[in-house]
Amino acid sequence: MLTVELDAHSYPIYIGPGLLSSAEIFGSHITGSQVMVVTNDCVSPLYLETLTKALGNFDVYTKILPDGEQYKNVDTLTSIFDALMEIPCDRQCTVIALGGGVVGDIAGFAAACYQRGVALIQVPTTLLAQVDSSVGGKTAVNHAMGKNMIGAFYQPKAVIADTNTLDTLPDRELRAGIAEVIKYGLLGDYEFFEWLEVNINDLLNRSQSGLIFAIERSCQNKAQIVARDEREKGERALLNLGHTFAHAIETATNYSSWLHGEAVAVGMLMAADLSVRLNNISGKELARIAAIIEHSKLPRTPPPGVSPDQFITHMSVDKKVERGNIRLVLLRAIGQAYLSDDYPASKLNETLQHFCAKSREAI
Amino acid sequence: MLTVELDAHSYPIYIGPGLLSSAEIFGSHITGSQVMVVTNDCVSPLYLETLTKALGNFDVYTKILPDGEQYKNVDTLTSIFDALMEIPCDRQCTVIALGGGVVGDIAGFAAACYQRGVALIQVPTTLLAQVDSSVGGKTAVNHAMGKNMIGAFYQPKAVIADTNTLDTLPDRELRAGIAEVIKYGLLGDYEFFEWLEVNINDLLNRSQSGLIFAIERSCQNKAQIVARDEREKGERALLNLGHTFAHAIETATNYSSWLHGEAVAVGMLMAADLSVRLNNISGKELARIAAIIEHSKLPRTPPPGVSPDQFITHMSVDKKVERGNIRLVLLRAIGQAYLSDDYPASKLNETLQHFCAKSREAI
Repeated sequence: MLTVELDAHSYPIYIGPGLLSSAEIFGSHITGSQVMVVTNDCVSPLYLETLTKALGNFDVYTKILPDGEQYKNVDTLTSIFDALMEIPCDRQCTVIALGGGVVGDIAGFAAACYQRGVALIQVPTTLLAQVDSSVGGKTAVNHAMGKNMIGAFYQPKAVIADTNTLDTLPDRELRAGIAEVIKYGLLGDYEFFEWLEVNINDLLNRSQSGLIFAIERSCQNKAQIVARDEREKGERALLNLGHTFAHAIETATNYSSWLHGEAVAVGMLMAADLSVRLNNISGKELARIAAIIEHSKLPRTPPPGVSPDQFITHMSVDKKVERGNIRLVLLRAIGQAYLSDDYPASKLNETLQHFCAKSREAI
Repeated sequence: MLTVELDAHSYPIYIGPGLLSSAEIFGSHITGSQVMVVTNDCVSPLYLETLTKALGNFDVYTKILPDGEQYKNVDTLTSIFDALMEIPCDRQCTVIALGGGVVGDIAGFAAACYQRGVALIQVPTTLLAQVDSSVGGKTAVNHAMGKNMIGAFYQPKAVIADTNTLDTLPDRELRAGIAEVIKYGLLGDYEFFEWLEVNINDLLNRSQSGLIFAIERSCQNKAQIVARDEREKGERALLNLGHTFAHAIETATNYSSWLHGEAVAVGMLMAADLSVRLNNISGKELARIAAIIEHSKLPRTPPPGVSPDQFITHMSVDKKVERGNIRLVLLRAIGQAYLSDDYPASKLNETLQHFCAKSREAI
């Protein structure tokens, strides 16, 4: 068990096989009598029954959302409020988010707002959610004009990651999660990056021990950064490595055709490419990064329809923009990321031109 | 200037005539370059120009909402997000809520959620907002099934209350604000209650010195309670004196025909009546409370259409309900409120029957 150390509201992260049926772990983090499980129509046939059995001592209600990032919006959020009000759930109720990043973000935000905040437990069922989105308290929905623009910092009472749930994860989603795992190595943990270079096949082949190690190491990295900077006044922004580019891709494709982790993979490569152009890292380091992304069968070019101008537009509306400059997470080395808006704009343009040209060639 | 003392985010309350045109005060609490003034179509013709002039050094944008509690909902909230995104406003922007309680609650909640929280300044222009809703960080919108059910605790950078704005306040709204002023005397400040018994006409006649004293004293009371219990784990709930009854009235009348303060006036009287039935306070004390409410030309009976059963239903869905009991703020004496769900249900029924019968007689 790891702990996210935050003054007033530290909380545990449980990682391991079979946790979904642990009545004891769930029971120790629920104080009221009512539990609202928020999940989606893809996850519910697989795991809702197991979880409901573990919650046998409570009044359990369920809200099943349609699956997909395109439903991560205010309308879906409102449908959760409606479900909570119809019962009605009281202030002591607990919201359990059972699913991937979308379910965690939207159910977490619903818990943050309902009656100005009720208890929340994150139960991530995808690799991406287990290593990233369920930890650290960022919750949000998308706005038509930008990703995660409406949200709250809201910490859960616990994160319970049952690694057995990864058995049913489609390959494409597993690889999207591996993109975020690679991110932790790239941004601050060179040793972990080296481990990944050697052991990436274990993850792709779903070795339980490999996955558990990678999830724990990723969560450790994230928990430490969040503990030092919960509200993203500084260091926490490093977790956005690749994300400003990625959000532009996701906005341009209307959050529908690309998985978040896939967009992050390209975004990390673009950040690394710009870091080479700024003489921060070597072409050889870039090649190592490209190799592990390629080996993970993750995309290395943006979708063909997105132009450099569109990148700039969508990156400028991104919330990491302050006072008109595009602030980016760049690399000083593998395992050493830094935040900067102090680089020649021409270099960013070169990176955008290069990647958009590559994506046209790829057609 | 008063201060709301909160560990990480204490903030000042400025109270006085002419503050709306103080470029200095506003300037000292704005850090970014963009300011979004959220107001309504009733307040904007009166005060928007003055405020905009005081904000001359900033990029000022405006979002004008329709006036009325019936617009305090998720749709209106979304329209504020749209306005912020269209510009787009960045993370360093400041939202200024210029108006009464509805504008403050909804603009405050928008600031809490936009990009997971941007700076907020409350500029209350009604007595009710100046003494109550602008202070303490409660923000929310209503759900069709319950008032203030969707919201956040989110503290402003400053509260700037220009008492000149009360000159244009309709009499009915002035009196609705006086209901909340009386509340502070009743719940915890007997000396202030006595002052009000003597000086209530000064407030009704809009004496500046009388109003400033009453606003300062009210804000002092509220700031102290909020400082001790920001998240309403205990004592802060005393500020809800009369409010559980009031919310039932407002829900039953669809938030449209009654002003919040009017409903609170009746609610306080119902709480006092129940307190007599529980032998906490004397009939003489109840008469003093009824007298000051009558003198302030505030209603003393609920609207005729609302039955005791409807009261129970709407009070049960109220967020102050926990584990099925209706928790109420009651009086041990004038100036001594307490929180209880430990009273005979029959006594609450007597109060409801009594008031609903009185309202039928009044037709």
